Amino acid sequence: MAARMLIDGVPVDQVPALDRGLAYGDGLFESIRFVGCMAPLWTRHMQRLSESCERLRIPVPDTAQLWREALEVARGMPQAVVRITVTRGVGERGYALPASPQPMRVVAAFAPPSVADSAYAQGVRMHVCDIRLAEQPLLAGMKHLNRLEQVLARAEWSDPAIAEGLLRDSHDRVISATMANLFAVVDGVLLTPTLDRCGVAGVARAEVLAMYPQTQVGELTLDTLLGASEVFLSSSVRGILPVRSLGQQDYAVGEITRQLQQHWRNLGFLMEQGG
Amino acid sequence: MAARMLIDGVPVDQVPALDRGLAYGDGLFESIRFVGCMAPLWTRHMQRLSESCERLRIPVPDTAQLWREALEVARGMPQAVVRITVTRGVGERGYALPASPQPMRVVAAFAPPSVADSAYAQGVRMHVCDIRLAEQPLLAGMKHLNRLEQVLARAEWSDPAIAEGLLRDSHDRVISATMANLFAVVDGVLLTPTLDRCGVAGVARAEVLAMYPQTQVGELTLDTLLGASEVFLSSSVRGILPVRSLGQQDYAVGEITRQLQQHWRNLGFLMEQGG
Repeated sequence: MAARMLIDGVPVDQVPALDRGLAYGDGLFESIRFVGCMAPLWTRHMQRLSESCERLRIPVPDTAQLWREALEVARGMPQAVVRITVTRGVGERGYALPASPQPMRVVAAFAPPSVADSAYAQGVRMHVCDIRLAEQPLLAGMKHLNRLEQVLARAEWSDPAIAEGLLRDSHDRVISATMANLFAVVDGVLLTPTLDRCGVAGVARAEVLAMYPQTQVGELTLDTLLGASEVFLSSSVRGILPVRSLGQQDYAVGEITRQLQQHWRNLGFLMEQGG
Repeated sequence: MAARMLIDGVPVDQVPALDRGLAYGDGLFESIRFVGCMAPLWTRHMQRLSESCERLRIPVPDTAQLWREALEVARGMPQAVVRITVTRGVGERGYALPASPQPMRVVAAFAPPSVADSAYAQGVRMHVCDIRLAEQPLLAGMKHLNRLEQVLARAEWSDPAIAEGLLRDSHDRVISATMANLFAVVDGVLLTPTLDRCGVAGVARAEVLAMYPQTQVGELTLDTLLGASEVFLSSSVRGILPVRSLGQQDYAVGEITRQLQQHWRNLGFLMEQGG
């Protein structure tokens, strides 16, 4: 894995072994799609990162500095995913917050994942995961470093024809995919799950909600989802992906999905059609 | 923080920034009390670590090698806590398990936390935490690296007279303290919470259960706990700590607590009375 990175601004590739990010998953991250020196959803990423730092009582990083560092690691890459990780830094052994936290930031650029043109044109297949997301309102919505549930969910299938897994909570509510948010059109209404108990409130999801402010954010059951006329995923890395099948249920690619893919192109993303 | 450590057997203090332990909390740890070159609960620690690795599909480390490395980092320290961290190692970006995982191990020795003699003799004060532990049976019992809930719980109080916090789940069931397991004597019966939905199944807890096989492992409410005649905490690092108060409720130090403290001394631990 060839990644170029800066750690607290220094071009190294190692972090202190006693960092609380490793010890406890005590931190947050953002995965940001760059097209050349442009990151169309940057402001939303920084907003989520700052709000999440405040929720976790981690000092908020200087976002202008993060922008300079992101540009530096992505320099020369026509397409990149920049992962920004912010942790609470090195601390004494034990869970108590350090009196004077020295947060650590890792800014690393990766080649984007390869997504077939057909995934954007005809859609992706989804597995219905067995794992249920645990409900923790104090952590819900954030892209924090405690991601073992997603690791276990992704380990449920190995068929390369399956692109994503559907995650539900213990009350049978649909929440999201493993690395994307989920939208469905039911009776002509755009729906997406509420994420106040579990799940990650994606930056791409926020962009969709801004485009379609009439979206109903609420509870969504698997039965309702199976009866939808249109289902799609939103991801800051992959963009808007139609869902062509969920388990045994097939879907056609719908009008809102196509409109949002066009909106993504208008933002400057070049993900589909060989982009 | 002066810690002596070995990372994959090498005396360095940095880990790869792309390790999945940092990226996702994708790993486990053990905090093991050493007295000189002796670790009385070592076998139980290795049993939990191996079982948890199997549950997470991380290759099980060579425990003989871990023992040699633990001895090396703790050498010359009359008392030490050795933290062993095992992660799934460096991986491609994304949650999918690496096809050929190369786990990483960090073996680090720390000075033990200072616990006042009075804590062992008269007991500690506990805060009743507001946070509720989320229920995830697939992760319950393991000492994995996703510990943000414990960080948030510990941040609920700053009064140094409070030593621990009581954690409950969303159904008002008592689970544990933030870094110890909990036992209560009610109507002469020793009780401890079941940990199949959340919580960490401690190594010291396993030792208590082996000593008192008649212990009832089940559901425990806060009301039941407040009516207990005896409450104590078990920790592989701190040993057996009586609870002298929980919120407004006071407790006397009980007979089983004293017997278990004596058992801990018999095992070779020297934690109380200036040890």
